[in-house]
Amino acid sequence: MPDNTIIPTPSAYAYPLLVKQLLLNSVSLHGDQQITYRGELRFTYRDFRDRIGKLASALASLGVRHGTTVAVMDWDSHRYLESYFAVPMMGATMFTVNVRLSPQQIAYTLNDAEAEVVLVHADFVPLLEQLKPELKSVRRIVVMADGQAVPASTLSFDGEYEALVGDASADFEFRDFDENTKAATFYTTGTTGDPKGVFYSHRQIVLHALSTAMTLSAQPEGQRLHRDDVYMPITPMFHVLAWGIPYIAVLLGLKTVLPGRYVPDMLLKLKREEKVTFSHCVPTILQMLLQAPSGAAQDLSGWKVIIGGSALSPVLCRAAVERGIDVFAGYGMSETGPVVALAQLSAADASADLDEQVRLRCMTGRPVPMVDFRVVDADMNDVPRDGKSQGEIVLRAPFLTQGYFKKPEASEELWAGGYLHTQDVAIVRPDGFVQIVDRIKDVIKTGGEWVSSIEVESLIAEVPGVQESAVVGVRDEKWGERPKAFVVCKPGASVEVEAIRSRLMQHVESNRISKYAVPEASHVVFVDEIPKTSVGKINKKVLRERSA
Amino acid sequence: MPDNTIIPTPSAYAYPLLVKQLLLNSVSLHGDQQITYRGELRFTYRDFRDRIGKLASALASLGVRHGTTVAVMDWDSHRYLESYFAVPMMGATMFTVNVRLSPQQIAYTLNDAEAEVVLVHADFVPLLEQLKPELKSVRRIVVMADGQAVPASTLSFDGEYEALVGDASADFEFRDFDENTKAATFYTTGTTGDPKGVFYSHRQIVLHALSTAMTLSAQPEGQRLHRDDVYMPITPMFHVLAWGIPYIAVLLGLKTVLPGRYVPDMLLKLKREEKVTFSHCVPTILQMLLQAPSGAAQDLSGWKVIIGGSALSPVLCRAAVERGIDVFAGYGMSETGPVVALAQLSAADASADLDEQVRLRCMTGRPVPMVDFRVVDADMNDVPRDGKSQGEIVLRAPFLTQGYFKKPEASEELWAGGYLHTQDVAIVRPDGFVQIVDRIKDVIKTGGEWVSSIEVESLIAEVPGVQESAVVGVRDEKWGERPKAFVVCKPGASVEVEAIRSRLMQHVESNRISKYAVPEASHVVFVDEIPKTSVGKINKKVLRERSA
Repeated sequence: MPDNTIIPTPSAYAYPLLVKQLLLNSVSLHGDQQITYRGELRFTYRDFRDRIGKLASALASLGVRHGTTVAVMDWDSHRYLESYFAVPMMGATMFTVNVRLSPQQIAYTLNDAEAEVVLVHADFVPLLEQLKPELKSVRRIVVMADGQAVPASTLSFDGEYEALVGDASADFEFRDFDENTKAATFYTTGTTGDPKGVFYSHRQIVLHALSTAMTLSAQPEGQRLHRDDVYMPITPMFHVLAWGIPYIAVLLGLKTVLPGRYVPDMLLKLKREEKVTFSHCVPTILQMLLQAPSGAAQDLSGWKVIIGGSALSPVLCRAAVERGIDVFAGYGMSETGPVVALAQLSAADASADLDEQVRLRCMTGRPVPMVDFRVVDADMNDVPRDGKSQGEIVLRAPFLTQGYFKKPEASEELWAGGYLHTQDVAIVRPDGFVQIVDRIKDVIKTGGEWVSSIEVESLIAEVPGVQESAVVGVRDEKWGERPKAFVVCKPGASVEVEAIRSRLMQHVESNRISKYAVPEASHVVFVDEIPKTSVGKINKKVLRERSA
Repeated sequence: MPDNTIIPTPSAYAYPLLVKQLLLNSVSLHGDQQITYRGELRFTYRDFRDRIGKLASALASLGVRHGTTVAVMDWDSHRYLESYFAVPMMGATMFTVNVRLSPQQIAYTLNDAEAEVVLVHADFVPLLEQLKPELKSVRRIVVMADGQAVPASTLSFDGEYEALVGDASADFEFRDFDENTKAATFYTTGTTGDPKGVFYSHRQIVLHALSTAMTLSAQPEGQRLHRDDVYMPITPMFHVLAWGIPYIAVLLGLKTVLPGRYVPDMLLKLKREEKVTFSHCVPTILQMLLQAPSGAAQDLSGWKVIIGGSALSPVLCRAAVERGIDVFAGYGMSETGPVVALAQLSAADASADLDEQVRLRCMTGRPVPMVDFRVVDADMNDVPRDGKSQGEIVLRAPFLTQGYFKKPEASEELWAGGYLHTQDVAIVRPDGFVQIVDRIKDVIKTGGEWVSSIEVESLIAEVPGVQESAVVGVRDEKWGERPKAFVVCKPGASVEVEAIRSRLMQHVESNRISKYAVPEASHVVFVDEIPKTSVGKINKKVLRERSA
């Protein structure tokens, strides 16, 4: 292939894509724009830019250099937002610690990430104290407090955040470097094994910000973001960079409200008083907000809220829409940047009746531009876009983690065949909307077809007398796998195997499921209870072992 | 500096930023969306994607390979849009020929760009015939016609576009390659010397599309672009890639209307019948549209039109706004991608009175995100943002040409000191709006200050009896340069030197100009006429030579 790459003139500036460039015109054009912490502290974008410089100077005085990993353990705060910029801009790596993991897991992640400096909120000092004997790489600790006393501990602090920042120079020189420099890292926890570190480069963070900002903004009306929006994250900033939205907020110069620890009354107060118009959260938080007595009379109309993390149920979605919230699903994972699909409605969708609108808002969404978003069978062929055929979502995009930290095997498995494997099983409608139906490990591959265990479970639940069920795949010489159902009856009820099978056969006749989805009579087993994991999910691993 | 660059797992897909990726979800999500040529031909995005594959196959059969330069000489058409994608996607370079240059200049650019294949519209066959003896690299010619007979010529054609595309396979395999591959080239003409070739890589085209799409979309209302817009270019597709907007239209899946040769009646008809809502053009075209008798009664409201190429005058802007056109200025050059500033109004601006709105819509604009847009003095210090201090606009952005083709000296001059020098002199208002006041070669540098020759000329024109004037800088040992004014009086009128000087002194007192801007009495010269260039601009070069 003859060379056709551009050779720049020696003086040309190559413009690496760096996090610092997200600030360029935000500060110069929106210098008076506000960033507030809980409505209690207020900073302008000019202050914010100064504080980024000061934080970098302070961190440099603690020995932070290009390549140092700086861990942050905080609620959503102005300090966190400052760290989002200052740490990567120094060429260091920001590690957003998931403070909800078990202490052992947190210690593991701090060691695995080789964190040298920890910025810790007073609330997490007892936790850090508990981990102290385990920590191998941490050599500096900066404490952060909101005016409260720092709990007593044997930790030795190298300073308090505000004092360090106050004393430091704003004129830190942020130099250019390779855009593939590691800007941020955090850990994803699977059901098995140690947490796995994912990592994002400057280039990836910038491209995710541009892509997501454009996708949100280009929406004609509803489910959109624009320069007059007021942003408040309600997905923790330690969780997949709060979906990258804080970077977008700064890029577009939005007023940004940082709510600290998530307390429904405080969130509702900030929404009201700071006139928040754009947020994102998991379904549980949305439910809490809708049910909070303090917000019962509050006008929530015009609040655009992306829901992710787990599926948005139609019931919750409808309740939110009825309160005026413009709620819609987003899809992504720790490994994917994260945003790769959004359930934005088209003009036609928006004129559909409420039922259909709710259905669409709860779907996984439509792929965002520039994401090579495929739903494929086991041979990597695209499944038909018929709203029925199932396949795994596999991805290419400019902002997917390039592996797991120090986990070469898991990394290669993630990227098998050059596509990132989400392990999510989905269908695609003819209009391009995608709906996840299962996790791949819970899908039953039988007779060349993929059967969603979740779907079969939900159909069995319709049978009178059934309380719950769990369906797993068991090995079968002829079919590869066959479904096996574990069924719990309601107290006092009795259910026939054939009642279950004939109910499922009706759904085969109506084309809802394939005939391969119906377990043989010998594979319908009544049990007293279904084994669950510590977080209440069905423990299919145990069931599969029991069936082996 | 310790290394902190990410090392991808071997199977990870690196995702080079390539033009082909702009198509990814456009075709899958907007497959039925329309592209129409003059309302006469209609294609869906699916057709469009197929035709891109077919065009590539056809070009490959003519010997086009990675690195081949393919020249296009056409009006704005579906064929041009297909070339925008197919040619770069093959790894070849699309050369958009400026058909308005002189035949000698066109021959020069075809030779300089080493164009091997030319796609030529029947209308330009006589022109190409005329150049034929000069052409050194062209070895294949494809003719394109809109049903009309191709003018007789001695050119030998290697096929007709539609016939070639019709016969070819849609399944061309577009492979990945380096994102810094040269995707497009075209020529910029200065006042002196040969046209200079600028060039853009795939990465630059993609980043310009993302940046400009986001900036246009994130606008709350007015001066914005969204997915339901209908796009029609009215800046030729050979002119700085039609400002990159065709790529954005496809990226967002917009209905796209290609108007062929610009004929006001046709443009107005397409606006009306195809329901066009988004365009861009130079002021001259806007004027033609407003004055066309066929459009006098036409509703133009809601038509968003970016104006660039030359300054939008308040009179024209007001006339457009009064017709309901949401008209606003954009700023860029052949060398800059092009869009680096847009005169989008803030909510506050939009509530200002019409005079102020017109003033803002006509300004050069606010810098777009991620563009390092500086206005600097001769020592590269930023001038104060006081709406008065003048400096040169210098730029860094992810999409600036990295030089001029085969012109190492001009390339280094363009990029002196690592910033692209626009040679435009501007002021910056405290709110960040930029206004160009002059070209740098026409600025007078005196006593450490920059004086806009254009501004002094406009003030001298206010003096009763003055018909026109031209102001240039002349060497001065003490001050570096001093302004010298050449003044033409109205027929029969007589003007005193001191009348001019005292008028200027009044403007010094009101702080409009610096005292350095007032020429000494000996530097005010009355002349019978001002020398002009062939296009009617004041020929300052001649005046400076006369004063040397």
